[in-house]
Amino acid sequence: MFKVDLNSDLGESFGNYKLGLDEEILKHITSANIACGWHAGDALCMSKTVKNACNQDVAVGAHPGFMDLEGFGRREMKITKQEAKAYIKYQLGALMAFTTSNNIKIQHVKPHGALYNMAAKDKDLAMGIAEAIYEVDKDIILLGLANSQMIKAAKDIGLRVASEVFADRAYNLDGSLVSRSIEGSVIHDADLAISRVIRMVKEGKVKSISGEDINIDAQSICVHGDNPKALEFVKKIHEALINENIEIAKLSEFIK
Amino acid sequence: MFKVDLNSDLGESFGNYKLGLDEEILKHITSANIACGWHAGDALCMSKTVKNACNQDVAVGAHPGFMDLEGFGRREMKITKQEAKAYIKYQLGALMAFTTSNNIKIQHVKPHGALYNMAAKDKDLAMGIAEAIYEVDKDIILLGLANSQMIKAAKDIGLRVASEVFADRAYNLDGSLVSRSIEGSVIHDADLAISRVIRMVKEGKVKSISGEDINIDAQSICVHGDNPKALEFVKKIHEALINENIEIAKLSEFIK
Amino acid sequence: MFKVDLNSDLGESFGNYKLGLDEEILKHITSANIACGWHAGDALCMSKTVKNACNQDVAVGAHPGFMDLEGFGRREMKITKQEAKAYIKYQLGALMAFTTSNNIKIQHVKPHGALYNMAAKDKDLAMGIAEAIYEVDKDIILLGLANSQMIKAAKDIGLRVASEVFADRAYNLDGSLVSRSIEGSVIHDADLAISRVIRMVKEGKVKSISGEDINIDAQSICVHGDNPKALEFVKKIHEALINENIEIAKLSEFIK
Amino acid sequence: MFKVDLNSDLGESFGNYKLGLDEEILKHITSANIACGWHAGDALCMSKTVKNACNQDVAVGAHPGFMDLEGFGRREMKITKQEAKAYIKYQLGALMAFTTSNNIKIQHVKPHGALYNMAAKDKDLAMGIAEAIYEVDKDIILLGLANSQMIKAAKDIGLRVASEVFADRAYNLDGSLVSRSIEGSVIHDADLAISRVIRMVKEGKVKSISGEDINIDAQSICVHGDNPKALEFVKKIHEALINENIEIAKLSEFIK
Repeated sequence: MFKVDLNSDLGESFGNYKLGLDEEILKHITSANIACGWHAGDALCMSKTVKNACNQDVAVGAHPGFMDLEGFGRREMKITKQEAKAYIKYQLGALMAFTTSNNIKIQHVKPHGALYNMAAKDKDLAMGIAEAIYEVDKDIILLGLANSQMIKAAKDIGLRVASEVFADRAYNLDGSLVSRSIEGSVIHDADLAISRVIRMVKEGKVKSISGEDINIDAQSICVHGDNPKALEFVKKIHEALINENIEIAKLSEFIK
Repeated sequence: MFKVDLNSDLGESFGNYKLGLDEEILKHITSANIACGWHAGDALCMSKTVKNACNQDVAVGAHPGFMDLEGFGRREMKITKQEAKAYIKYQLGALMAFTTSNNIKIQHVKPHGALYNMAAKDKDLAMGIAEAIYEVDKDIILLGLANSQMIKAAKDIGLRVASEVFADRAYNLDGSLVSRSIEGSVIHDADLAISRVIRMVKEGKVKSISGEDINIDAQSICVHGDNPKALEFVKKIHEALINENIEIAKLSEFIK
Repeated sequence: MFKVDLNSDLGESFGNYKLGLDEEILKHITSANIACGWHAGDALCMSKTVKNACNQDVAVGAHPGFMDLEGFGRREMKITKQEAKAYIKYQLGALMAFTTSNNIKIQHVKPHGALYNMAAKDKDLAMGIAEAIYEVDKDIILLGLANSQMIKAAKDIGLRVASEVFADRAYNLDGSLVSRSIEGSVIHDADLAISRVIRMVKEGKVKSISGEDINIDAQSICVHGDNPKALEFVKKIHEALINENIEIAKLSEFIK
Repeated sequence: MFKVDLNSDLGESFGNYKLGLDEEILKHITSANIACGWHAGDALCMSKTVKNACNQDVAVGAHPGFMDLEGFGRREMKITKQEAKAYIKYQLGALMAFTTSNNIKIQHVKPHGALYNMAAKDKDLAMGIAEAIYEVDKDIILLGLANSQMIKAAKDIGLRVASEVFADRAYNLDGSLVSRSIEGSVIHDADLAISRVIRMVKEGKVKSISGEDINIDAQSICVHGDNPKALEFVKKIHEALINENIEIAKLSEFIK
């Protein structure tokens, strides 16, 4: 039977600032990527979000990013491999204090924003991230962009790895995401997006922007919960997967 | 045989800013309180300091403080018990990622600066700190001011506890430290300071500023390593303790 | 003719985090207190908010607070007078770059949150704030709590001053605000709140929580715009003031 | 008569962290670039450094950088032109509060670290910086790398501009600095460095790393004061310039 994980970024509030429909989205996903206080989230928010995920039986992952709250971790910063390694450890450890308090384990790490995009292309940065996770806990899964340097780095290190796909994004022939600045990069038709993602899960293939099929691993689908419309899409994709006999399961249940 | 621990605050550099003679002081102490990135320290500095402590066989403790780099965590901030609890967990967890990477355990937590002073008097705040540690790892020792609310809170929770004394500070009749703004609060005579601390360890007593003896537990002595003169004093106190047949040992070796 | 200013806190968004119905509230007020990047606001938000205020002919004031984004500047921090002075100058200057770019002047400074509350009672802190403003621009008005130490400090320094009142808050016999933790501190009846504020403006009197009248200067009324209900109240109070022949005017138009 | 300015980065301490021999270097330079609280410096440090510069009759300039204290503003961050513009205004305004308090004017703005290097090559970023200065105060001079996009941007805008040269750095044929990672990029021979800089001032020429002469404007020479050796070099260059009949003067005294 086919299995896939549904992941979403959570715990992105900060102090007085509230973001995301976390309690709603938790009902529909299997893995939560929780912000660790650098690009978003604060200690109280992390504490609460981990508890909520626990209560809904959603697996918890760390979602570390750049120390750039003003830019929400979405701006590229030139850091060294050693810095990346230390930054991932710091944020992963911080979140771990809250999972330990709830008697659960961290399932995965998914880098955030610009760090995710940079590490998808930069093997050195990706190795820093993978080494950090490996040295803290060998059982943690690295969740990274399908076909990216992150996936390669995790395999090199001997870390379990899960490939993430995006239902609403177009892919280049080399398996990378089409940049948002290019026309056709975002797929607005919900039905098309869903049929693409089902094919990725079942056949391991997707049609690239140039028209040819490419190979793609689809172990986790990224979904959003920042607005009511996004929530609707999550419900729709959830239902479609079930109808296709695809089991929606936590990464830890099927990633070897 | 009498035993006592020598502790010092380490890893207080931040980015381009260097502070403390860490490598020197590590030769003379048994426990290092390592800053966790909020009032001082950054992830790279934490990584390096934990490794250095390991290499010198010095026990590692977390030294969490307020998120106030500009004030070096020395300015009082009015926070709730829930905030204190989440802040301690966050910083403790962050440091734990680095100790785990080095295959060692966190021995203790010693709050820093204004947080230490506030929690010494405020039972509620002290409970927040003690609960945080207990929920993350019941084996960790809380290192707090002798006779303070931190000691009481840790005992209430069921956490192991170590009482810290200061060689160069005067004590009030109730066991609290004489405020630095009061004359006579700091003992400048090194020999007097050392003889006081030896009496604290051996007899569990010290003469208060009003002249009467008070009871005091002295399981750890706080020493400083920010300047060559401080280092000299550490060597002197180290030598004096040995001469008095007091064993200098890590907290974990004698705290029940 | 009676005159009064309506002020509101604006520009409290930060990066990806949006807060407040700024564009709506600007239609109903005469003075905007703009966050300066420490407890809220960022440089882009300040730039935009100053421009919007300009466009609506609303006077611009600086709203400096503690460097505590996580606590939104609402948590007390123990700072010295010299620190307060430097912090006010820094934030005031930063905002001034944006007003100068728009060819307008800063009308006033109103400290934010915990800094406002602390300076209301602490003359030394209030003097630090008043001196900072005076040294940067003697023409700026200090907007502070009626009957507070801020008002006294500004008068001592020779700074123009405006007394702020709250329509929905109860007052103690000494003119201070009744703490929010005490029952009856907040007036929920909109009509009562409005009639109280009109009496403050016209008679300079308000009934204290103990039942006796006290004297109060009411040069500016603080209103909020964070939610639709708050906006409704602003429209209501605006209308009521007009009906009572009270002119709603910027501070700079009537403060000597 | 030939004239040249000597500039140095000052006010780089932060809270408990002290950096630089500011009081010593102030005796030998004509222009101080003062950090504005983002990559270094804090409000108290800015206040003190401006006062010290005033007392030594050294011209004050703003030294704005990225909001990256941990990286000391030396790590590239991908920001937009609009962000650059707002960030420069914010930091320039903040410093201006302290110069106004001392009854002096800001003479110049020199971007710091990675922002300086990026704006040297990126015209769009350079335009953001130049526009920011122009909109705050048209009389301020932009101090930028000789032959860089910053110089071009300032001229386009109509801002006065000063070209900065480095005594100890090699230049490429196109006038840009040879990257530090390339051998021969730093000139270690003090006498050679000084003779090169004198030729830049007198002839407007310097020998590039490939051996051919290039044209270079040398209106200000950057010197450092972080260590005793750097201070020695400053004294030496100061003396050599005087011996060559080159007047050492503030930018404002000779830049048209």
